[in-house]
Amino acid sequence: MKFDHVAVPSNDIARSVEWYTARFGAKVIYQDATWAFLNVGGQKLALVTPTQHPPHVAVAVTEGELKDASAAAGIPIDKHRDGTKGIYIHDPFGNAVELICYPPGETAYEQT
Amino acid sequence: MKFDHVAVPSNDIARSVEWYTARFGAKVIYQDATWAFLNVGGQKLALVTPTQHPPHVAVAVTEGELKDASAAAGIPIDKHRDGTKGIYIHDPFGNAVELICYPPGETAYEQT
Repeated sequence: MKFDHVAVPSNDIARSVEWYTARFGAKVIYQDATWAFLNVGGQKLALVTPTQHPPHVAVAVTEGELKDASAAAGIPIDKHRDGTKGIYIHDPFGNAVELICYPPGETAYEQT
Repeated sequence: MKFDHVAVPSNDIARSVEWYTARFGAKVIYQDATWAFLNVGGQKLALVTPTQHPPHVAVAVTEGELKDASAAAGIPIDKHRDGTKGIYIHDPFGNAVELICYPPGETAYEQT
């Protein structure tokens, strides 16, 4: 289990990407109209359209850990277009925590 | 400039610490009644009482960078009880980003 990324909301992904790039020298890992994945000072930071993806923190887990957590929580596993899989759970105050799995060789990018 | 931590809100720090510890094996770096600092899978995650500290992401900067940013933004530098210093700026959608400085030898913990 390893911390993977933090996702903050944005209603204009391009504008936010420009701000994080200008302010912090962020590097773009992925970007489309609904979300972006940046490297900000060595940490992956996602920008997400809140109507599509909740703001969250994410920890990387193995496929076995993801299956166990899915079964324990009764939450089906989502398969994402980038090849990752995951579920969202919530801490005691409703903060979303994504359990994300990068199946080896199946994702759009290498896990960093 | 290096990513430093993410802070998520909690209205019961002890309860949240227990949850992150039980669920993710978090290690406690610091804890009191109003906030806690955890290591979650290699990343520092803060739990903050939202009436006292805004949820935020934080990047570590040097004292020179902090002074320059403070002057540019017209925001005075806060000195924290743990020896760190910082200011909060906001991205285009109001997400708080802390610029935090760990003056060498002056903080309650070594920067990791």
